[in-house]
Formats: sequence, structure tokens, C-alpha cells
Amino acid sequence: MQKELLDKIMKPKSIAVVGASTKEHTIGSDIMKRLQEYKFNGKIYPVNPKGGIIEGLQAYTNVNEIPGEVDLAIIVVNAKFVLDTIDQCNQKGIKGLCIITAGFKETGKEGAELEKQLLEKVRSYGMRCVGPNCLGVVNTLPEISMDGCFAESLPERGHIGFVSQSGALGGGILNILKDLNLGFAQFISIGNQADVNAETALEYWENDDDVQQILLYMESIQNPANFRKLASRITKKKPVLALKAGRSAAGASAASSHTGSLAGADKAANALLNQSGVIREYSLKNLFATAKVFANCPIPKGDRVAIITNSGGPGIMATDAVCEYGMQMAKISDATKEKLRSFLPSAASVKNPIDMIASAPIEHYKQTLETVIADENVDMIMVIYLPFLGLKDIDVAKAVMEIKKQYPQKPVIGVFMTKSEFFTALSDMDVNMPFFMYAEEAADGFNRLNQQRLWQNRPEGKIPCYDVDRAKAADIIRQSICEGRAQLTTRESIDVLDAYGIRVCKSGFATNIDEVVTVGNSIGYPVVMKMTSKTTSHKTDVGGVRVNIQSEEQLRAEYNDLIAKLTEKGLIDGLEGVIIQEMVKGNREMVCGIATDPQYGPMMMFGLGGVFIEVMKDVTFRIAPLTDIDAEEMIKSVKAYKLLEGARGTTPAQMGQIQETLLRLSQLVNDFKFIDELDINPLLISEKTGEGIAVDGRIKVRLEEAKSALADCCTCGSATC
Amino acid sequence: MQKELLDKIMKPKSIAVVGASTKEHTIGSDIMKRLQEYKFNGKIYPVNPKGGIIEGLQAYTNVNEIPGEVDLAIIVVNAKFVLDTIDQCNQKGIKGLCIITAGFKETGKEGAELEKQLLEKVRSYGMRCVGPNCLGVVNTLPEISMDGCFAESLPERGHIGFVSQSGALGGGILNILKDLNLGFAQFISIGNQADVNAETALEYWENDDDVQQILLYMESIQNPANFRKLASRITKKKPVLALKAGRSAAGASAASSHTGSLAGADKAANALLNQSGVIREYSLKNLFATAKVFANCPIPKGDRVAIITNSGGPGIMATDAVCEYGMQMAKISDATKEKLRSFLPSAASVKNPIDMIASAPIEHYKQTLETVIADENVDMIMVIYLPFLGLKDIDVAKAVMEIKKQYPQKPVIGVFMTKSEFFTALSDMDVNMPFFMYAEEAADGFNRLNQQRLWQNRPEGKIPCYDVDRAKAADIIRQSICEGRAQLTTRESIDVLDAYGIRVCKSGFATNIDEVVTVGNSIGYPVVMKMTSKTTSHKTDVGGVRVNIQSEEQLRAEYNDLIAKLTEKGLIDGLEGVIIQEMVKGNREMVCGIATDPQYGPMMMFGLGGVFIEVMKDVTFRIAPLTDIDAEEMIKSVKAYKLLEGARGTTPAQMGQIQETLLRLSQLVNDFKFIDELDINPLLISEKTGEGIAVDGRIKVRLEEAKSALADCCTCGSATC
Repeated sequence: MQKELLDKIMKPKSIAVVGASTKEHTIGSDIMKRLQEYKFNGKIYPVNPKGGIIEGLQAYTNVNEIPGEVDLAIIVVNAKFVLDTIDQCNQKGIKGLCIITAGFKETGKEGAELEKQLLEKVRSYGMRCVGPNCLGVVNTLPEISMDGCFAESLPERGHIGFVSQSGALGGGILNILKDLNLGFAQFISIGNQADVNAETALEYWENDDDVQQILLYMESIQNPANFRKLASRITKKKPVLALKAGRSAAGASAASSHTGSLAGADKAANALLNQSGVIREYSLKNLFATAKVFANCPIPKGDRVAIITNSGGPGIMATDAVCEYGMQMAKISDATKEKLRSFLPSAASVKNPIDMIASAPIEHYKQTLETVIADENVDMIMVIYLPFLGLKDIDVAKAVMEIKKQYPQKPVIGVFMTKSEFFTALSDMDVNMPFFMYAEEAADGFNRLNQQRLWQNRPEGKIPCYDVDRAKAADIIRQSICEGRAQLTTRESIDVLDAYGIRVCKSGFATNIDEVVTVGNSIGYPVVMKMTSKTTSHKTDVGGVRVNIQSEEQLRAEYNDLIAKLTEKGLIDGLEGVIIQEMVKGNREMVCGIATDPQYGPMMMFGLGGVFIEVMKDVTFRIAPLTDIDAEEMIKSVKAYKLLEGARGTTPAQMGQIQETLLRLSQLVNDFKFIDELDINPLLISEKTGEGIAVDGRIKVRLEEAKSALADCCTCGSATC
Repeated sequence: MQKELLDKIMKPKSIAVVGASTKEHTIGSDIMKRLQEYKFNGKIYPVNPKGGIIEGLQAYTNVNEIPGEVDLAIIVVNAKFVLDTIDQCNQKGIKGLCIITAGFKETGKEGAELEKQLLEKVRSYGMRCVGPNCLGVVNTLPEISMDGCFAESLPERGHIGFVSQSGALGGGILNILKDLNLGFAQFISIGNQADVNAETALEYWENDDDVQQILLYMESIQNPANFRKLASRITKKKPVLALKAGRSAAGASAASSHTGSLAGADKAANALLNQSGVIREYSLKNLFATAKVFANCPIPKGDRVAIITNSGGPGIMATDAVCEYGMQMAKISDATKEKLRSFLPSAASVKNPIDMIASAPIEHYKQTLETVIADENVDMIMVIYLPFLGLKDIDVAKAVMEIKKQYPQKPVIGVFMTKSEFFTALSDMDVNMPFFMYAEEAADGFNRLNQQRLWQNRPEGKIPCYDVDRAKAADIIRQSICEGRAQLTTRESIDVLDAYGIRVCKSGFATNIDEVVTVGNSIGYPVVMKMTSKTTSHKTDVGGVRVNIQSEEQLRAEYNDLIAKLTEKGLIDGLEGVIIQEMVKGNREMVCGIATDPQYGPMMMFGLGGVFIEVMKDVTFRIAPLTDIDAEEMIKSVKAYKLLEGARGTTPAQMGQIQETLLRLSQLVNDFKFIDELDINPLLISEKTGEGIAVDGRIKVRLEEAKSALADCCTCGSATC
């Protein structure tokens, strides 16, 4: 990550503004102004070929004329001069660049070529670079105090690290930070993210205590695997919230498999964020509301919520919202209730929600909160206030914050249904808890705190490595691609699954009575026998399907009977042989599979299969490879989990075995990265044993990729891991 | 409804405040103050036993001393004096009461008794009464100008009719109306709703042009059937939005049937609001956001949305939100595109979302909106603005509103991601379109407008009346209740369904070969034959179930074979007979039924049945009786509809016949209101014909109710309708 290099950009001691200008309302002028208005704590060197004085400072005609050292060059020159500027920066020994200039990849092919050259230079000079086509960078740490953006407003100080892929949006947000009662520690407008991207920022901020939560606005994720690696680690240390836009554009994938048609890029993004512990928000409004909660609340110890109110209606609405998130309404202890009764009027309710009634004075707010916050059955508290009887909202808020200060370990959120003046007044104060207008917003906040708590307590998980017959699988696939078939036959697909230790429906082919018996005995009874014939397509009509064969003896009899009947009917000539199949009984059909997202790579699917698959869409996705925890969560997250548990008197499924099936599939696609689609449909749950058994399977590979991969290796039979 | 009486309350020419007071911060003082501050356009008579001057007006010791006529008495005296006060009001000829006084039903049994007496007096005197235990009433119409509430803030003028069951909440809302940029036409705090309730208000406002939309905050619905009747009619004329609180309190119903356990009070409320065309909101925030949209937008002609923006990111987020609601992104016509290209810079995008890029001046906002709003492919427009380059937000808003004014028929919503000062400034202006901070809020708004459009275009629907054998059904039920059985047997249940013309699985009982043949022939082949025996419970083990019997001949053979086998095994003595059943083939199992909600009455259910019913919960509810449109919508609203349509090569279901099944059930429960639960599970979809066939059924009645109902009538065999 080269922290030292990134420090040059985010914590510079000196900045050159290349393209600084005296012309009003230009970026070159605005950047100079913001740097000075925000009182950058270091040297600022304007650079302009005309020299002169810019914003009261001596301008240099070239970075190489600057007398002192330069950490960061903010570049706003025309796109055609950018490459030369980078060369000059290199001569000067500048390692940090922030290229605001637009006219690169975003404009088309020529711009993309220019950006490629830009990146090559940056790499070869050992520099790091933010942009191009961005708004700039911000660090509000007092010893840095850098506003290197050309937005209208100066940043507010706070502890959010914010990355925006949209410069305009970043500017819009800087404008409203104060109204939102939020502040940034650092802000990086990554623009075209030629070099520095969201992943760079995540890693850079991982151990920076000034950045207490990270917010991402993304339209794409550059390297999903790397993002996952970093984010899963960092989310354990601090909340990471993401707004991923472009959901609808993804649209339905045109892939032919079930797994594929149910997937689609947004499902992939969703799976990735979910697996990485990133809290996904779907609107800016919610993104900021959640940020406000994390900025002012500790992570709670549990999910038990107490509600304190002076008005019944909002108390009921708050209860609804808390319950709908699956959190618990705290059971107030008897001791707490007794204490509450000692000072609240008799008309008050001391059960949760605690209704102090409209006449509650400030003293009741203080005493009630103090009493409830000390209750061990309570993890989070919502304090609702509606203005009555001349009580001043801001006084109530101050009283509540005073109590809250003594209990830093429990989240408290205020719901003050009052005039906007109250919220304006708050934005000028130092608050120790978030305040919202509506109860539902507070419930949203508790839900996010609880989500972060659950994630932080979630075990890391391991990607297991099973002993599999990789060479055999490779051979089967090679056979198919040698014949130019991207799509393996059912037989081949099943055999590949079998080679990877996935429980498949056992079967074999036989052409005479001895083979029939051998196959039958090796499978174990009961079995099903099906004829295969070149001339008779309606097998059942001629008695060609025999089910529930219980023994070798019965198998012999059925086979002989079949031969006799076919002979009798003159159909014996077409007979190729019979398929002997394990007889699996069960009416629970699941599905699992792999789909490949062009951007996110292989994705695992699991859910309800059979006729319901497309209708109910009760399926879930995760990016491969899976950890054991991922696999477990996949199984538990579908509604059909209840069926697996053994609803309505069915045999409980072997959860561990199904989990292993998913993990083995994950290993398979990790070993053969050219597998494009894989479906096991159905994965039948045996009524007898509860095993998940692959009754049907199909595998499709990317032909060219498979050819080169299998040419390189894999005949060797080398171990997977 | 007695409009004239309600006019006395909501449009009074004179008001007596009984319990007016000179003591600060009392309700008796505050009401007097508000009436005067808001400049009530009529006479105000303070009434207080001590007389004197109150708020500058001569107080009377009793309403009967008041010299002029009095339309409305606002009563704030202690609860124990309320009944006497009502007597006095009657002597004075006052017909309108607003009883603010608390201490009635909400306090327990004694209070409830007092409220009962209060209501008796009100009824016997021919009065109408708002309250008790309420905040008061408001009418902002300039010729009335009444603020009869004791809230902190005066109301804002607007065209919303608002009913609140929570007085505190009503007060809270009055406080923030200005910030919300909303205004009330009338407000009724219904309190304990002893007399006037939400239904009264709905009907009263139905033809009041000053009330252009109706907002309801409800914790309960007093008379669901009446509410439905009124709301379904009024929602066709103006939007009705409801926030129904107490969802979670409802909890899971303890009912024993499938239908019952999936129901629950909130599902009933949801069904009722849905069927009545009421727009349900789940948070106050959304309630007001939607109200702001209806206050400033016409109902659109379609669902095609165009987005105009000066910033890509928010444009993408807006597109996501629009698509997720299932609305369409408008296809901008070529002519429009060409026109846009003529003045927008080349870097701009003229495809929807139309990105004018960050440099867009006010002139581009005007020209672009003017061009796009005239496009026939566009029904609604979102205009997004992020502040750049010193453009003033309020100037942009004014320019946009200027264009909007010329196209009153198309909804336009502004998304201005800017400082709160902008919104504060707006709240002092006369706006002709709503403005929000975030794109998602605008998309929410379009969705609500579209929902109202769809509802207004929805056919009324009819409750059909089928020719059924009501007398036979009554006889069957009577038989059961005579034996003290609330739960009918399967046989009886199926027979009741059959009497109502519901397609049931045909079957009959036979004890000898002649009966067997008769029954078999009457059902038609193929049939299934099942033995019933008192001694042999495992029918299949002894060959007691014979399926797919194709003819009379085969039926004879199978029966004789069964008798022979049982005789042989010595099991013939226990044999009671055989059930001959129509053989229905099909693997699509639906469910339909009836559950009774204690408050909302009988509710119809329809959805996916079989083993999936509890797991997938793919079911929908409607309050009975159903209209044909209700039944059609029920069928179409479940995910399993795709199965019915014939997914994966199955026979398409007979939708009309299934719809009729629901309507006949609805008629059944309407005829026999004491039916508590009814389940048809499964309603099997025949693979052969696509019919829905009731294979199993169970009916449970409320015994006492059924006894008295069936004693009164129904032996008569009278027609249903």
C-alpha cells in the first residue's frame, strides 16, 4: 500500500497547485482559495507559466523552480499538459499527485489511452496518484488542515473517511455536512481511480484512529477479490458503509443456466458487500443517517431496546419499527419499574415503551433515562420528546445528553419531533448522541448498530481444503473440450462432481445380466432400472422403467422379465442396455450452483430448487471461494431452511453435509476457474438419510480459457491446496 | 352523516369555551389564546363559573347566559363536570361539541362507563361530538379561521384533511408543519372517538373541495366494513394516506388453521387499506413526504419518468430507485433529443437520465425542462440540482417552477442537494412543485402518484351472487352443531363446499360391489379406491389403496381382489367399506381459506399450499366479501401465479374458475357469518384440465353464534341475495 507515499497526498507538508489561476470561478482559483480559507498547515506553492502573484502568494512558472520540498502536486492544467507536468513533478522529486483535470477515460478511447500513459508514468516514477477527473482531497486533522477540493463549502471536522467515485456528489455532500451534523476526517474523490481507489483508501485508513468509520460511494468495484479481503478485515475494526449505485443498469443477466438467470451484477455486489461485513445502504439519506449513528454511538452489547417517551403514538410507532427489525423490546426489570414508579405520575406506564405522559418535566427525562440506562436488561435506548407545556426542546436535549455522558457504553438516540431550529441549534453544538425527527429513523440506527455488533462477533471462517481427485476431474473436462464441447454431458458433469466428493446419485450402465448384477450390488438396494434404446423412446409404455428393486434376486428377475417382454414385442434389437440407478426418495428439491459474473467472478448459489426455483426465487448468492461460515449462512438464509430442518414431519437434512457440498463446489470452481456455469438441480434431500444428493448436474466451461489452463497443468494430478 | 351538525363543529360561527381560564399554561387558557391568535372569524364566548374577563373577553358563568347563538362548545372542564356541561349545552341548543377533557375510556372501567353516559347524552340530544381526550379541531379556511387546539404552534394553511387518533402526535405535527412545507385545511383530533371518528371525517370531507387529500393516523379502525365502503369510494376522488400504528402488538395469531396462523391483525389492516385504495405509509416521515407530493403534483397519465440532472451519480441513483419501483424510464423521443443537443454541450447526455453536466447554467435548466416536459413519452420529471460554479439554488428552483407553471398536467419533483437554508427559504414561498434533498425521495413520490393513478383507473368491481344450495349447507352445519361439534368433519366440510358450487374432489362411500360400481360410474374414471377399516390402519401394507382405476371392469376386479386378499389375511371383519375417489393428477398445490380477525371479521386467503405453505408464506389476504376485482388481484399478487400461468410446461390453470372459487367462498362466509375458519388445502390444480379442485377441506364455526343464527333462519332455503 505504500503508506508513506499516500501520506504525501493525504498528510502533505507542502502542496504545489499546478495550474493555479487568478481567474475567478475557475478550478485553479478555487483550489487556491479553499487551501487558504481552510488554513492549510504547510506551504502552498502556486504554479503557473505566467508567474505573478496568485491569491497573495508568489507563483512559480514550473514546479522545479519551487525552492522547498513538495509532497503533493494538485494538478489542474489542461489534459494535454498533464503528462509533461508529471515528468516535471518527477524531476522535482514529488511523489504525491492529485490530478483534478478531466478529459481522460471518461471521454472515450483517446482519453483512455492518455490515462494509460499517465498511469505508466506514475508507476514508473514510483508515485501515487488520486484522480484524474476528480474533486480533490481533504484532511481535516488540525495539524494538516487541508481542503484540496474545489467544492463550494469548506469541510466540517469529524471522524468519517469518505471515498466518492462521483466528484459532483462529493461536492454536494461537502455542502450539506453541517446540516447533517456530520464531519469528515479525510475525503478522497477518486474520480477515474487510475491508481488510488476505494481499496487503497480502506487499507490506508485501516489503522488510522482519526478515521472511525468509512463511507464509500461506488459505481463499480475494481478488484472484488481484493476488496473482499481488505473489507472483511477492516469491518471488524470499524464500520464501513457503502452506497453502491447502478443497481438497475445491471439488469437481468442473459445467462442460460438457472443460477445465471437468477444472478446478475447487483446480486454479486450485494453478496460481496454482505460477505465482507460492509453495511450497504440504498439511499444517500440512509447512508448519512447511519453515519450519524455510528459517529455518536458505541457498538451495543445486545439488541434489547428500551423506549422512553412523553407521547403514546410515537412510542407505538417506535415499538413497531424495533420489532420489525427483529430486535427485542427490553424487559424492564422489576427494580427499575419500582424506581420509575417512585417519581412518575400514576397515569405513566413503566412498561416498555415507558410513557412518562405529556406532562413530563425535564427532571422526569433525566431521572427516567438515568434509571433505565442502568438496567442490565437494556442495551440501547430511544428517548422520544414531543413539545408540550412550554418545555424547551434544546433544554430537554441537553439534560438527556448530560445523563448519557455518564454511560458512554450504551447507545442512546433522541427522537425530537420539533422544529428545524432545534436541529440547526444542534449542528452548532458538541453532541454525544444522535437526534432524529422520527422514531423510525432511530430504529433504523439501532438496527445498523446491531448489525455491526453481529458482524464483529461473527467468527472469521475458514476456506477448507478437501481431498479431491482433481486429476480425474481435469481429465473429464479435457475430454469434453477436446471434442469442442463447452457444455459437459450430464454423465461427465456428474462424474466431475463425484471426483470432488460431492454426493451424487449413484448409477451405472450394464448390457448383460452379469453386468446388471455387478452394478446393482455396487450401488446397493433399492435401485431403479431404466432401459436405453435407440428405437423405443417411450420407455414406460413397454415396461422399460422398473422402480423400487429391493434385492439382487429381484433385479435379476426384473431384468430377465424386461428382456423377455422386449423380445416378445420385437423391440429387443434397439436395446443398448440398462441404467441402474440408486433409488433416492425425497420431495425436497434444493438447487446449488455456480454462475460467473463478468466483473465479480464466480458466484455460488443455493436455495429452493425444482419447479419452484424461478417462481419463488428463494435463493442466495455468495462470491466464491466460500468460507465454512459463508456456507452455513447461505443455508440458513433461505426460507426453505425450515424445510431442511424437517418441517411437517420430514427427516431433518444433514446440514453439515449440505454445507460441505457447497464448500466442495467452491473448491471445484477455485481449481478450475474457467467453469462458467454449474447447476445441481435438484440437490434432492433424501427422505431416508437427510443427505443432499446431486440427482442432475450440468457444467459449462469457457472453452478457450479451459484449453489453455488444462494445457498448462492438471494432467499432473497435483494436489489442490 | 349529518353534515349540518358536523358543520357546527368544523365551520362554527360562534364558539363557547367551557372551562376557559386565566391561568397560564393551562388548556383553558391556551385554547382561548389560540382561537384569538389565529383570528377566529366568529364569536368567542369564554365560560367559567367565576365569570370575569378572560383573554380580554367577558366570561359567562354558564353557557345559558351567553346572549347569542352558539354552534360549538369546546369543553375543557374536569371530567366529572362534563355530563352536566352537556346538559347545559343542550338547554342552550348547542349541537356541536369538542370535548378536550381527558379521564374517560383511556383510564379504565370507570372512565369507560362515564364515556358511555356521555355518548348516550350526545345521541339523545341529537348532537355530534369530537373527543373526549383530544387536542381539538382546526379549520384554516379564511372565512372560518379556527384553531381550536392547545398545541404550541398555530396551524399552517393548506389543503390536507388530517385525522389523528393520538392528540400528542397531532400537536407535534402542528409544530413542524411549516418545516415540512405542508398545510392543513382541517384537522380533527378524534381522541377516544366516542362519536366522531376517522370514518366520519372521511365522509365529511368527501365533497369538500378545500380538502384535497386526507391523512389518517390510526391505532385502530372502529368499523372496518364501513371504513372500507367509504374509503373505496373516496379514494377514487382524492388520495387518502394512512399511518396505521400498532402493527407489532398484533403479534402472531394463536389460531389453529393455516389461514389463521398466517393471518393476524396487521395483515387484516393491510388488506383492508389495500382493498380500499388507501395508501399505507409505515413512517411519519414517509407520510409527510407523500403528502407533500400530492399537495403539489397532479395525478400523472402514466409511469414514464424522465430525469434531468447536472451530476451523474445522483442521476444513476435516481434511475435505480425509479426502476426498483417498477416504473419506466421514459424513452426520450428523437425530436426531443435533437432539440436538447442543439443547446447542451457535447459532453452532456441526452439519453434518460439527461445529464446536462456540472457546468449547466440556469438557462439550460429552463430549456431542458421545457423541452422534456413537452415530450409525449414523458409522464413525470425529476429535476436534480447540485450546486456548482456559484449558481444560486433558489434561483434555479424559481426558474424550474416558472417552466413547470406552464405544464400543470405533468408532475415535476425537484431534488436539490443543497443547504437547509434553501428548504427554509422554500417554506416561505408559494411553490408549485415539491422539492426534496435526495433522489430516492422523489422516486418514492412518483411511485405514490403512480399508485394513485392505478387505483383511480381500477374498475370498481362487483360482489357477484352465485346460485348455491344454501339450505343444504345450513343443514350440514346444523347437523354438526347439534352434535356439539364446532369443527365439521372432512366429509361435511367438503359437502358444504360442494353445496356452494366449489369444485371438490368427487368421492363416495360403498360397502358392496353394486354400490362400488354405482359410485365409480357416477364419478367417472379414472378413480382411486381406498379401504376404510376399524382394525387395519396401514392401508397400503395390505393393498388397501388402488390407484388409477380406468374402467368399471377394472374397478370390479380390484374390489373383488381386495376382498379376496383381506379374507385371505383374516382382515375382512374390520372392513367398513371403500371410498371411491376421483383421481386428480397435478403437482401444483394452492391453498385458500377464511380466517376471522376479531376486529376486522372474515378474511380471505389465497396462495401457495402444500408443504410450502408455512415455509414460503406466499399468501395474500383480503377482507370479505370480495369483489371480482379483489379475487382477480389476489390470484395475480402471489408469486405462485407464475405456476398457475403454466410455468415449465404445465397446463395453465383456469384462472376464472379459481377466481370463482374464491368468490363462492366469500359468499359462503357472508351467508354464514359464524364460520370461524375454513381451509381448502390443497386446492389442487388439475394437470388435465387446469381446474382448481378442493381435495381436502375443513370448516370450523363459532358454536354459540352458529346455534342462534341457524335457529332463526336457513331451514327455509331462502335465496342468498
